[in-house]
Amino acid sequence: MKANNQSVKIIPLGGLEQIGMNITAIEYEDHIIVVDCGLAFPDEDMLGIDLVIPDITYLKENASKVKGLVITHGHEDHIGAIPYALKEINMPVYATKLTMGLIENKLREHNLLKSTKRKVVKHGQSINLGCFRIEFIKTNHSISDAAALAIYTPAGVIVHTGDFKIDYTPVFGDAIDLGRFAELGKKGVLALMCDSTNCERPGFTPSERTVGRTLDHLFNEHINHRIIVATFASNVDRVQQIINCAHKYGKKVVVEGRSMVTTISTAAELGYINIPKKTLIDIEEMRNYPDDKIVLITTGSQGETMAALSRMAASVHRKVSINPGDVIIFSSHPIPGNEKAVNKVMNDLALKGAKVIYQDTHVSGHACEEEIKLIYTLTKPRYAIPVHGEYHHLMTHRNLAIEMGIPKENVIILHSGDVLSISEKQAKVTGKVPAGGVFVDGLGVGDVGNIVLRDRQLLSQNGLFIVVVTLDRYNNMLLAGPDIVSRGFVYVRESENLMEEARNVVRDTLDRCRSKKITDWGRMKSSIRDDLGDFIWKRMKRSPMILPIITEV
Amino acid sequence: MKANNQSVKIIPLGGLEQIGMNITAIEYEDHIIVVDCGLAFPDEDMLGIDLVIPDITYLKENASKVKGLVITHGHEDHIGAIPYALKEINMPVYATKLTMGLIENKLREHNLLKSTKRKVVKHGQSINLGCFRIEFIKTNHSISDAAALAIYTPAGVIVHTGDFKIDYTPVFGDAIDLGRFAELGKKGVLALMCDSTNCERPGFTPSERTVGRTLDHLFNEHINHRIIVATFASNVDRVQQIINCAHKYGKKVVVEGRSMVTTISTAAELGYINIPKKTLIDIEEMRNYPDDKIVLITTGSQGETMAALSRMAASVHRKVSINPGDVIIFSSHPIPGNEKAVNKVMNDLALKGAKVIYQDTHVSGHACEEEIKLIYTLTKPRYAIPVHGEYHHLMTHRNLAIEMGIPKENVIILHSGDVLSISEKQAKVTGKVPAGGVFVDGLGVGDVGNIVLRDRQLLSQNGLFIVVVTLDRYNNMLLAGPDIVSRGFVYVRESENLMEEARNVVRDTLDRCRSKKITDWGRMKSSIRDDLGDFIWKRMKRSPMILPIITEV
Repeated sequence: MKANNQSVKIIPLGGLEQIGMNITAIEYEDHIIVVDCGLAFPDEDMLGIDLVIPDITYLKENASKVKGLVITHGHEDHIGAIPYALKEINMPVYATKLTMGLIENKLREHNLLKSTKRKVVKHGQSINLGCFRIEFIKTNHSISDAAALAIYTPAGVIVHTGDFKIDYTPVFGDAIDLGRFAELGKKGVLALMCDSTNCERPGFTPSERTVGRTLDHLFNEHINHRIIVATFASNVDRVQQIINCAHKYGKKVVVEGRSMVTTISTAAELGYINIPKKTLIDIEEMRNYPDDKIVLITTGSQGETMAALSRMAASVHRKVSINPGDVIIFSSHPIPGNEKAVNKVMNDLALKGAKVIYQDTHVSGHACEEEIKLIYTLTKPRYAIPVHGEYHHLMTHRNLAIEMGIPKENVIILHSGDVLSISEKQAKVTGKVPAGGVFVDGLGVGDVGNIVLRDRQLLSQNGLFIVVVTLDRYNNMLLAGPDIVSRGFVYVRESENLMEEARNVVRDTLDRCRSKKITDWGRMKSSIRDDLGDFIWKRMKRSPMILPIITEV
Repeated sequence: MKANNQSVKIIPLGGLEQIGMNITAIEYEDHIIVVDCGLAFPDEDMLGIDLVIPDITYLKENASKVKGLVITHGHEDHIGAIPYALKEINMPVYATKLTMGLIENKLREHNLLKSTKRKVVKHGQSINLGCFRIEFIKTNHSISDAAALAIYTPAGVIVHTGDFKIDYTPVFGDAIDLGRFAELGKKGVLALMCDSTNCERPGFTPSERTVGRTLDHLFNEHINHRIIVATFASNVDRVQQIINCAHKYGKKVVVEGRSMVTTISTAAELGYINIPKKTLIDIEEMRNYPDDKIVLITTGSQGETMAALSRMAASVHRKVSINPGDVIIFSSHPIPGNEKAVNKVMNDLALKGAKVIYQDTHVSGHACEEEIKLIYTLTKPRYAIPVHGEYHHLMTHRNLAIEMGIPKENVIILHSGDVLSISEKQAKVTGKVPAGGVFVDGLGVGDVGNIVLRDRQLLSQNGLFIVVVTLDRYNNMLLAGPDIVSRGFVYVRESENLMEEARNVVRDTLDRCRSKKITDWGRMKSSIRDDLGDFIWKRMKRSPMILPIITEV
């Protein structure tokens, strides 16, 4: 790499404070490219929120510069917000074949297929976007067709690993192209943006094939039982291995759950999964076969209430009932936050007499410590920018990069919205742009913010107390009420005395207001709120939301 | 064991559907004893609930028969509901020394210390309660002084393990009294009620001392840093090992967090922890020492918002600020459901430059598969009644018991409220009594039920819409309103048009009611709810709670 003084900007717009929304802008003069565009699922304190998408104000303000969107792989946290972004900025989308297939499913749903320019890129191939050249490099992950990106910029080469692991014996396609990483390293890599998810785990992540061996063993052991396997819809290689086992042991395969059906169809159409003839049957045909000839592949491995397996467990699935003797394999680990939901589904299944198996039936799609070290060894970057993981992962990754010989000051931990100006000479955060999460609730995008969430939080914890009084508009005398309606507070029949006392509290408040000549509704309402709040706290040690409503006639 | 025809009743009142509330009644004619009396922490869908305690209706109805409460160990899920139960039924309490110390702390808070008869029992000692004799047997667990119980009943001996593990090299006191289990087995055990928590994990749970070795290694590695260790307040042996390391490496120990201070004081008073002189210093003295001479033992290992470590991480702790260079050890595993909260605290700490360590720094307090098998081998019970665990654990434990030679029909999975009549000849569920959880919210016990929770759930997801109309009592003409107040729905300023349209919808509804001569408020309200609900769903794809309030003047 020839020394040069050019500097390029790296701007993560999400994915750091809010895990999931992976999106990074890379900018040089009038050229911007965007890497990934994912969504996050709401935290439990984001009450009623359906999805969280990244704030792309900065891209909208610079829409004329945006040359294209480059995608590393087809997981929701990397492609889920694409339709929302395309509604704001029309930009071409570049991805490998399966990734593009999954993106197209989304564009179709949002009626954006026609208006969006798309190009399928092969591993090893490069595309040019403005002053940037982007090369797609084969990697392995828990979804097929994942790519790392070598981004050739005027300041040097940035290698972005995407989400990856090293699998020397992948189920489908080739192993990660370590040779290419090595070549890039020889020529000189300016910065490595590397997956941090598993950097706190020592050693290597096992090959996806190890799961196949476990499944084979379990299928063999339970040959006389119906087998139900729950896994991630997007893990096409896992599904392939389940199908292989079913075929080997002479069982028919039924696929259930909307996302599972969609993904497998797309993968089959595009040649990423190989289903032996007559193996797949429709769920309606299941009744024509004895239980021990059936393997059901289903969604719901995370305990999601509406997913197929959860509905089976709760006896509300219309086509599948769990029978004693069924063997149910969770081929997954619970994503942090889902443990209790998964446990509930397991309990419901166990109560129906099914055997639940969840150990040694999953491997991660992310690189562990030694794999990450290998990538550093091959690419020998000048700068390390840990990406993808909780902050404590990024910080552990930082120490790991330092151990690998990257000077301390060249390891950069970014926050969403940071503008990192990076050149061979120096790397420095030189600005801040809007970034972070935008809430999607029903059809609304961004119309629910922190005030609304705070109200939902308060309502959810303590319920509410509505006080309605009707006043004479001429003399403020009470014409009707106080009526009190409560919700989410206590059983009504247990609270009749309380309600009567509460009405008296409000009457006293209004009398006091009148005697003090207070006629301003704002002050009257806040007096009602204060007095009633005190009364309820003393009696119950609870703080419901109190909403005084005054009407006048 | 001589053959006999007597039968005794075993009645779990909680702890099965609702993990945590361990409480079991054992009954023979006019004699009832109660084993443990725990509380559960609310699931995330139990909005606003503080605690869940067991429904003891059955005990209240048979209060005259209740001879006493026997406690296996001092964890919240075994002692937490004692004060609530004692307010309903005055019964004597029996426990080992440390367990009783922790119970007494609770009784003091609830002003029940004077009115409650208590007796400290030693391991190996027996007590007589009515027709029952109860022997306390030494076990190991993640709290000191845990006991298994051999309950001698007219129908035979019931062995209840409590929560246990086998630790041949415990930090404090003796190893589990396996010899006594063997003796009981020789004489004949009617039923074994055995801990199921870890029955899905193969092998043996490592000794608590293994954590001590890891801690020693970490203290040595970070000798020049301030070390903060978060762990369970009740794990006195863990705290002992942290203190030992601090002493060895010449550091002073500060204890922080209310429950940690209380438990360590109790344990120290009773001789369950040994703190070398001048090792413990007050948090106020911390400033007199350099950082590398300090070890802080703190609560908050589960990411609890109000716990000391969480407050340090969020920069709202009044006495401790996290500095770069601090080493923070999570000596714990997240309890299912707490993973996200723990992650958040770790992130906040990492962002402040602290090093966060959480691997290999904890061992479980529950027996794994091989330990459970050992207990079966020693006790050779006629019946197996798996207890303590999720249902899928109980079902796995069931298979394990069958593998150990217990006939299938002699392994009994109970549900809360089941009345199991058990004799040498047969064991059969012969009845059902009220059981399950009672919600505690503020000062209210049992006044929040499913309807209230459903309202809180609805409010939390979609917020609410209040519609107030004032009608003329003589002709139902609209005198004031419709006024609309919303909370937890959308930003008010973004919704002005929507609110105006909503008011029009309500006006139309009222006109239609009038023209159809509908004057019944119930029908008018439901028309408003329906019309407005449709309107909002079409516009926003959301379903807020709609509360029409009609007043008349």
